[in-house]
Amino acid sequence: MSLFSDVAPIRFEGPESPNELVYRVYEPDRVVLGKRMEDWLRVAVCYWHSFNWPGSDVFGTGTLPRPWLGQPVTDAMARQKLDAAFEFFSRLGVRYFTFHDLDVMASADTVRGHEQQLRQIEEAMAEKCAATGVRPLWGTANLFSHPRYAAGAATSPDPEVFAWAAAQVRCCLETTHRLGGANYVLWGGREGYDSLLNTDLGSELDRYGRFLALVVEHKHRIGFKGTILIEPKPFEPTKHQYDRDTAAVYAFLQRYGLTGEVRINVEVNHATLAGLDFEHEIAAARAYGLFGSIDMNRGDPRNGWDTDQFPNNAQELVPALMQLVEDGGFATGGFNFDAKLRRQSVAPADLYLAHIGGIDTLARALLAAGEIVREGQLQRLRVERYQGWNSELGRAIDQGRFSLAALADYAADHELTPTPRSGRQELAESIIARHCRF
Amino acid sequence: MSLFSDVAPIRFEGPESPNELVYRVYEPDRVVLGKRMEDWLRVAVCYWHSFNWPGSDVFGTGTLPRPWLGQPVTDAMARQKLDAAFEFFSRLGVRYFTFHDLDVMASADTVRGHEQQLRQIEEAMAEKCAATGVRPLWGTANLFSHPRYAAGAATSPDPEVFAWAAAQVRCCLETTHRLGGANYVLWGGREGYDSLLNTDLGSELDRYGRFLALVVEHKHRIGFKGTILIEPKPFEPTKHQYDRDTAAVYAFLQRYGLTGEVRINVEVNHATLAGLDFEHEIAAARAYGLFGSIDMNRGDPRNGWDTDQFPNNAQELVPALMQLVEDGGFATGGFNFDAKLRRQSVAPADLYLAHIGGIDTLARALLAAGEIVREGQLQRLRVERYQGWNSELGRAIDQGRFSLAALADYAADHELTPTPRSGRQELAESIIARHCRF
Amino acid sequence: MSLFSDVAPIRFEGPESPNELVYRVYEPDRVVLGKRMEDWLRVAVCYWHSFNWPGSDVFGTGTLPRPWLGQPVTDAMARQKLDAAFEFFSRLGVRYFTFHDLDVMASADTVRGHEQQLRQIEEAMAEKCAATGVRPLWGTANLFSHPRYAAGAATSPDPEVFAWAAAQVRCCLETTHRLGGANYVLWGGREGYDSLLNTDLGSELDRYGRFLALVVEHKHRIGFKGTILIEPKPFEPTKHQYDRDTAAVYAFLQRYGLTGEVRINVEVNHATLAGLDFEHEIAAARAYGLFGSIDMNRGDPRNGWDTDQFPNNAQELVPALMQLVEDGGFATGGFNFDAKLRRQSVAPADLYLAHIGGIDTLARALLAAGEIVREGQLQRLRVERYQGWNSELGRAIDQGRFSLAALADYAADHELTPTPRSGRQELAESIIARHCRF
Amino acid sequence: MSLFSDVAPIRFEGPESPNELVYRVYEPDRVVLGKRMEDWLRVAVCYWHSFNWPGSDVFGTGTLPRPWLGQPVTDAMARQKLDAAFEFFSRLGVRYFTFHDLDVMASADTVRGHEQQLRQIEEAMAEKCAATGVRPLWGTANLFSHPRYAAGAATSPDPEVFAWAAAQVRCCLETTHRLGGANYVLWGGREGYDSLLNTDLGSELDRYGRFLALVVEHKHRIGFKGTILIEPKPFEPTKHQYDRDTAAVYAFLQRYGLTGEVRINVEVNHATLAGLDFEHEIAAARAYGLFGSIDMNRGDPRNGWDTDQFPNNAQELVPALMQLVEDGGFATGGFNFDAKLRRQSVAPADLYLAHIGGIDTLARALLAAGEIVREGQLQRLRVERYQGWNSELGRAIDQGRFSLAALADYAADHELTPTPRSGRQELAESIIARHCRF
Repeated sequence: MSLFSDVAPIRFEGPESPNELVYRVYEPDRVVLGKRMEDWLRVAVCYWHSFNWPGSDVFGTGTLPRPWLGQPVTDAMARQKLDAAFEFFSRLGVRYFTFHDLDVMASADTVRGHEQQLRQIEEAMAEKCAATGVRPLWGTANLFSHPRYAAGAATSPDPEVFAWAAAQVRCCLETTHRLGGANYVLWGGREGYDSLLNTDLGSELDRYGRFLALVVEHKHRIGFKGTILIEPKPFEPTKHQYDRDTAAVYAFLQRYGLTGEVRINVEVNHATLAGLDFEHEIAAARAYGLFGSIDMNRGDPRNGWDTDQFPNNAQELVPALMQLVEDGGFATGGFNFDAKLRRQSVAPADLYLAHIGGIDTLARALLAAGEIVREGQLQRLRVERYQGWNSELGRAIDQGRFSLAALADYAADHELTPTPRSGRQELAESIIARHCRF
Repeated sequence: MSLFSDVAPIRFEGPESPNELVYRVYEPDRVVLGKRMEDWLRVAVCYWHSFNWPGSDVFGTGTLPRPWLGQPVTDAMARQKLDAAFEFFSRLGVRYFTFHDLDVMASADTVRGHEQQLRQIEEAMAEKCAATGVRPLWGTANLFSHPRYAAGAATSPDPEVFAWAAAQVRCCLETTHRLGGANYVLWGGREGYDSLLNTDLGSELDRYGRFLALVVEHKHRIGFKGTILIEPKPFEPTKHQYDRDTAAVYAFLQRYGLTGEVRINVEVNHATLAGLDFEHEIAAARAYGLFGSIDMNRGDPRNGWDTDQFPNNAQELVPALMQLVEDGGFATGGFNFDAKLRRQSVAPADLYLAHIGGIDTLARALLAAGEIVREGQLQRLRVERYQGWNSELGRAIDQGRFSLAALADYAADHELTPTPRSGRQELAESIIARHCRF
Repeated sequence: MSLFSDVAPIRFEGPESPNELVYRVYEPDRVVLGKRMEDWLRVAVCYWHSFNWPGSDVFGTGTLPRPWLGQPVTDAMARQKLDAAFEFFSRLGVRYFTFHDLDVMASADTVRGHEQQLRQIEEAMAEKCAATGVRPLWGTANLFSHPRYAAGAATSPDPEVFAWAAAQVRCCLETTHRLGGANYVLWGGREGYDSLLNTDLGSELDRYGRFLALVVEHKHRIGFKGTILIEPKPFEPTKHQYDRDTAAVYAFLQRYGLTGEVRINVEVNHATLAGLDFEHEIAAARAYGLFGSIDMNRGDPRNGWDTDQFPNNAQELVPALMQLVEDGGFATGGFNFDAKLRRQSVAPADLYLAHIGGIDTLARALLAAGEIVREGQLQRLRVERYQGWNSELGRAIDQGRFSLAALADYAADHELTPTPRSGRQELAESIIARHCRF
Repeated sequence: MSLFSDVAPIRFEGPESPNELVYRVYEPDRVVLGKRMEDWLRVAVCYWHSFNWPGSDVFGTGTLPRPWLGQPVTDAMARQKLDAAFEFFSRLGVRYFTFHDLDVMASADTVRGHEQQLRQIEEAMAEKCAATGVRPLWGTANLFSHPRYAAGAATSPDPEVFAWAAAQVRCCLETTHRLGGANYVLWGGREGYDSLLNTDLGSELDRYGRFLALVVEHKHRIGFKGTILIEPKPFEPTKHQYDRDTAAVYAFLQRYGLTGEVRINVEVNHATLAGLDFEHEIAAARAYGLFGSIDMNRGDPRNGWDTDQFPNNAQELVPALMQLVEDGGFATGGFNFDAKLRRQSVAPADLYLAHIGGIDTLARALLAAGEIVREGQLQRLRVERYQGWNSELGRAIDQGRFSLAALADYAADHELTPTPRSGRQELAESIIARHCRF
């Protein structure tokens, strides 16, 4: 019996259900455009927020009952947490989870100790995975909590820190591989700076590039078939993080010859902190061939930090879901709920309610996006808007048949006076709105 | 006699001068680290804010006396403006100006008319340049004010708009070339979108890449030796602009094979709107080999749009100026005052006062940066911080002699426990502060 | 025949209609909790964005066909605009409009001329109102566009400007009164400052207080029964506006003895620019007894200025609509669409589509809010959360029966150890989400 | 011997000193406009950031050597901390410190235990104060760290929490009184909400008002002559905090009849998070008669949370210091360094360097402000700007001799056409800039 065992497995009961601990919309086997809802969404629960965070914030200590937490973490505590986590995954009915090395293992002070502890809990995790059918959407190494990483991991001014980071990533990548993980993520929370004054930006970028290349090389060496993902974030905890947004990561990957090897894990709240819409980051990643996976949460639009809240407004997600649907779904990615309870949500049921709300929100957005894509009105609107590029002039430009001077002469000779056309933005927005009825 | 002729040429009178219309710090011939102040700063006045803007804002009409403005602009009005502008340049004592095609010329409705009007005023400009020694730091085509550009220029859904834009750029690039301009700038104010819903982001990026390639090819064809610059901005007037920041432009240039041909014009207020420090954008552009020129202004940290104010806090600029000093100064770039008066600054003298204040601010920052670089304390602090990378381990990592696995083993075998070292950020900040005494 | 006469009157056709120029949700006669939908919403169209704005922005000239615009505005142009506006109101099927004096009248340079022109068009407006049944939700004087108001109206450093403002407000208040307006609004767009350095903040606040008192006194003198409203905004066009948010206005009204006489017109985009949720501003205004009316629009969460977009996400509005429903609806207020087209929306039908989308969004939010209030689950959750205050201890504190010392002693003597209780925020959010299905 | 005893007492050595652990500008006995620098600035060091914070952040554990920290805090640990703190105060050479109850005392679980522990350490503090001449600028109760306060203290849904808060404040207020504190501060870090959906805003405000009234009544009962201060902050840790900014507090104080009893403690970083300039908050507090004290720090303009950094740009502070100088200095307030080290600043000397940098920054700003006020140019500029209000018309308006109608008639009869006058903002900014040379 654990903290999360008082709740019966969460079932679909439909929108009119009088119960709270049920899905109203998420129906794993419901088919949307030829694919099961569960296969579209590939939902994952994260270990850190849900089982490793006591409900503390910068101004207050933990509020949530998490009896397995403490310093140091013993193997028994790690196993108690493992039991609780897999009980939660199973009862919630998801097939994936995500984890940092430090989330799952007992504490260790040395590299050898770290490796031993992670291997030890890995065996228990493997049993749980086998027993439940739940497996890692991705694993990742925590390269930011320990004081040694205060100035970065791959971008630390101290090469011994770089080496420690290499050891953690090697170990966690191998564990993720053996557990059947679908991806491996790098989040560079402290790969950046607190002050440019004491920072050699160029050298740090070069070392970050080198580190990533080492990881890619090791992935191939061990035969890991999953995707290596970078998760952009603009700042917090650092003042500036190098992998600020998709464009910054793309610049970086091109510079260090890593396109084709590394993709993007887009997080909603990280995107908005960077001043970008979530759907923009998806669109940019797709245009650059980098789209990988999604961390699903939301920020508070009035607060300037990573509030990591559960999503609840399906309409906000439809522009992103439409892109996913147009692509036919994820390759190796999924929707990881990188979201945490509010600090007052101290009842064990709250963790279920929060995830249920989030998953139903995703399901609503998927159903709406599926209908919009199927009906095709919005896509037609967009195609018509660009129809001029199918003209003789448009094709000639696109095919490179004009120099600047020739094109200028063409404009002059033909006395071009382009006709204003409506962009029909308000109609496009209404099309989205009217399909959000689930 | 013009609006700006009541003021005597602005001279250096030193910090204790009782007069207002004088430089207190800016002394063109003063030598800083072996170079004249004027040659370090290469100050330019912009045509648009200073002579083409009537003092209007979104909520109100023009307040400033600019008798040469009206719709349409006649050739006589354009010449009256030209007289006033060069009188101002001369009396202020700067050697450079910047302009959009539409700032200087009479109105035209057709491509041919546009070309004729620009050529016509170009002759008058050439005479002014010859007479005064003032020349363009850069020219640029206005591809955003006319309704035809409402949906973008190179990224318009209408190829005729692309063609119009090509005609304007060809013409303006050639004018800039003939006037001896040091650079040519592209600012993609509407190369972006108002709504992702009606936008084909990937195709628009490809067309933007093509447009830029055409411009580069034409530059070489006509023998223009100046630098092609892109000026990043994240948004405004559009919701999202593709050349958001230096990293986004670098991603773009690599994708379309344009590194080596195009550099960055960093604007202070655009950087801060993008959520980035001005000095970060300089550092990023330098690390990527893209640094070109600077648009000098500042935003209001409480207001979320491009307030384009004159700088007045020298200390804020020192981290950027230090980088410039370390580089030995601009290659072809300079400091363009892309700053405008406040709407209540209706006296003709206000334009002088604003520029004097801005130029003295730059001079203060240069003097402080020069001293800091000369003394070397801050640079030593930074070098010491990274000294670990000169160790055997550091060099081996940098030289690629470790695989991930080998490095992990090294960390385990050597029982690495990195020693915490102070980042000395507060000291670094104090070093900057204490040198700001000019 | 006018620009807007090609469209048939907009009718309700339900969610499955294949047509665009129809209401899918807004059904004026549909009864929600005992009141007709039209009576709940009291929708108004604004004159300025819809008929007086040419589609310009800070970087570009007008794009929209508005043949009645120009400088100066003649009486014929004003009447042409009036015809178009009322044609639009009628076909859209709304009962209210809002206007600035300058929106409706011909241009005038003197106070007398201003009064004459406004009276003259007022007669034509009165005829239109009588013929259509459409009347002003509110009128307001434009005290920000003319250069004389560059430094404020009531807070100008020039008392002659204060006098001009008095003349405009007197005249517009009387016109609004005679036209049967339900409210009169003051928006202090330039009542604030561009720089604190040249501003006497205390004196300006005092004069703003005096101005408001004069308006209130005049309202009573002429027998106007409508409500005087202030519309908060934090900045733009000024750097800082005195009536920043509801709390700032409440501070001001108390200081100058105006509570009971003046209420708040909450604008969504102004609230968010101030860093506040729309629903917070409603809640604050209700708590202070100041709630009056609503300007309905939305900002772009990534852009830091007043984008004034049409709302399209009903769920975002539900927390505000629930408050309205709990109050039984507006007293004199309504939903004014202070929203404007995007600059590319150049087709006349776009203005209909935008308003239809906005009105249907309001209707969706009303239906959801109505159901949530009727079911009562969310209200019960809230009541249960505070149930401790019904205890002996709670009542004693609320009734003032404890001093600080006595309460401290009580806490010590009873060894109080408060029991943690879930705030159930995620559940509350899910309750909102699941009702947004219209 | 303690952590901070390796550093010799910090002395003034002037701007050219080659040493780091010295004041370059801060000279306590230097007289500025008739008052000693130390008496103008009244510098305080805060206990919490400097001695109670281990260098942790949301993503990482402590990095700073603070051997007296742990859970629970024993009396011995509290005394070790006390020794270190007063050693630091003395060697730094400041006369004030600030503290929360929990910062100084040993841990306690019950109200009685809390009272005992605070009284116990109070005796040791009193001895330290007597021995060093250092005393509290203010004390405050920590009503936000313990889980019981997760939903607020005075605004908790649980009256037992209200009672606990009362007990803590009573006790801390009395301790502050006995230690000779100059003020007592309330910071309502969790007096607000995480979600409006589960919040009864009106009742919470009423209870906050009641709580404050109880504190004021107790202050008088015990004869405390210091000032009760509220420290506004807009959010963090909550989504919304009721005492958001000065205007919100003023609204609140008027509503609950507490003006005259409570003043404002303005924090720089809290002001900027609220979207307001620090100097605006000072000006608003002065205009409302509420100005009390200052928490000196700064935020990072690119990061949306409370970074609490030491100030280092004197020019930014001059507009605030000018107001202080115009007032003749603080009444009971002072400059409390509510600023913390960066997490990498692990050397004990860093705490000295950070405070030295901050205090020198204040001294620079004071010297500049003093000169500007003495010269009077900026004040004259402002007075001239408003000179119109000394006219017959201006005085008549100010004295209430016009009704709206009479004033409108006056404007019409006199054909008023106000003359545009420059606001001279750029000049005003230059005046500030040119005096920042210390």
